[in-house]
Amino acid sequence: MPIKLIGYAQSLPTRRVILTLNELGLSYELEAVTEIHTIKTDDFLANKHAFGKIPVLCDGDFTINESRAICRYLVSKYQKDAKIVLIPDDINKVSLIEQYISYELSYFDPPLTKILLQEVFNKRRGEPIDEAIVKQAREEIEKVLDVYEKILVGKDYLNGEYSLADLFHFPCAHYICTDTQQGDIFDTRPNVKRWLDNLRNRDAYKKTYAE
Amino acid sequence: MPIKLIGYAQSLPTRRVILTLNELGLSYELEAVTEIHTIKTDDFLANKHAFGKIPVLCDGDFTINESRAICRYLVSKYQKDAKIVLIPDDINKVSLIEQYISYELSYFDPPLTKILLQEVFNKRRGEPIDEAIVKQAREEIEKVLDVYEKILVGKDYLNGEYSLADLFHFPCAHYICTDTQQGDIFDTRPNVKRWLDNLRNRDAYKKTYAE
Ligand SMILES: N[C@@H](CCC(=O)N[C@@H](CS)C(=O)NCC(=O)O)C(=O)O
Ligand SMILES: N[C@@H](CCC(=O)N[C@@H](CS)C(=O)NCC(=O)O)C(=O)O
Repeated sequence: MPIKLIGYAQSLPTRRVILTLNELGLSYELEAVTEIHTIKTDDFLANKHAFGKIPVLCDGDFTINESRAICRYLVSKYQKDAKIVLIPDDINKVSLIEQYISYELSYFDPPLTKILLQEVFNKRRGEPIDEAIVKQAREEIEKVLDVYEKILVGKDYLNGEYSLADLFHFPCAHYICTDTQQGDIFDTRPNVKRWLDNLRNRDAYKKTYAE
Repeated sequence: MPIKLIGYAQSLPTRRVILTLNELGLSYELEAVTEIHTIKTDDFLANKHAFGKIPVLCDGDFTINESRAICRYLVSKYQKDAKIVLIPDDINKVSLIEQYISYELSYFDPPLTKILLQEVFNKRRGEPIDEAIVKQAREEIEKVLDVYEKILVGKDYLNGEYSLADLFHFPCAHYICTDTQQGDIFDTRPNVKRWLDNLRNRDAYKKTYAE
């Protein structure tokens, strides 16, 4: 039975999982969700995701949801057979990767999500963009990226070697570049720009975004 | 050299780490931070936490920050010598624990943090409480806790057996109970209340909150 991914290929958390599947060289079947009511049924809430969200991954009898938890599952189960290391064995290395994963969740994702809500989702729904929120979120992420710029001095990836921490950051950053007016926040910081380009040039990323 | 925890014992992320230290039966030295400027120096930013935050843990030569990453480090390094399992070996079990950890970050923590910002931090600074924000956050967390109430049917802990996922939830929930007017959101849901009481009655929790 192939791995089944229930999601929406263009959605940011689904992309996070597809990147991980492609890095690990795993094949999968995408069960595309296009109508929101299909993820709010009693059956979906009881058996797929208690909060009615995508992505959800089914691997044989085992069902798991939440993009970052799904990626961790795939690494735990399949990395040993893959050509790549997304989470190494060394405790200190893995702990620093967890530190960067926490930076993504705590400092990187929240202001970028505010920008996406305004410039992508409000726009799509025909609602006005609240420029004050965009301005405040931009100020917030500029300060955060100044810290990333220092972290990335002389490094190709956050923890030196490529890891799941870099992968977790990418979909949100890339979305900002392709679908908002704010992509210059990355381009004006040479180390941040080099880091995102390093990711963009990886085969798994090219494959994911070509699909 | 004992484990050194740089933090502020009453702060919520520091408490998350102290709970983990106590569960693992580890002794540590708390280096108390009372003045914010001490965590914004060039030295602190370069060597302790790039974003100038606490807690930070130093274990010999190794320094790690971000509460959830610190707890994961302690489990990876010291669980084998402890009487307790916070993260088991089984891949499926561990992945479901990661799913609940993601629920904490994605759905549980954000509305509760909004309430704390208003009812604890604004109050402390003598700023007015924005009742509209509290009301909206309360509506949000009530819906989230309705889902937790279902998840916890017939279970002592989120994943059946106690794990790091339960521990991650506790400090924020407890803070709401002790320092805001909104503690009834937990008490009116019998499974959620039983779950939090199970945690409160654990020795490590009693020890942490007695200190
Ligand atoms: N924390 C979740 C977020 C998932 C999420 O918000 N998914 C969106 C699609 S991009 C969704 O399912 N939205 C439907 C809804 O919230 O009703 C993850 O990382 O997987
Ligand atoms: N994501 C961090 C949050 C740490 C945090 O926000 N700590 C607060 C104290 S409770 C802090 O250091 N605040 C100082 C500041 O933000 O300037 C963690 O989980 O450790």
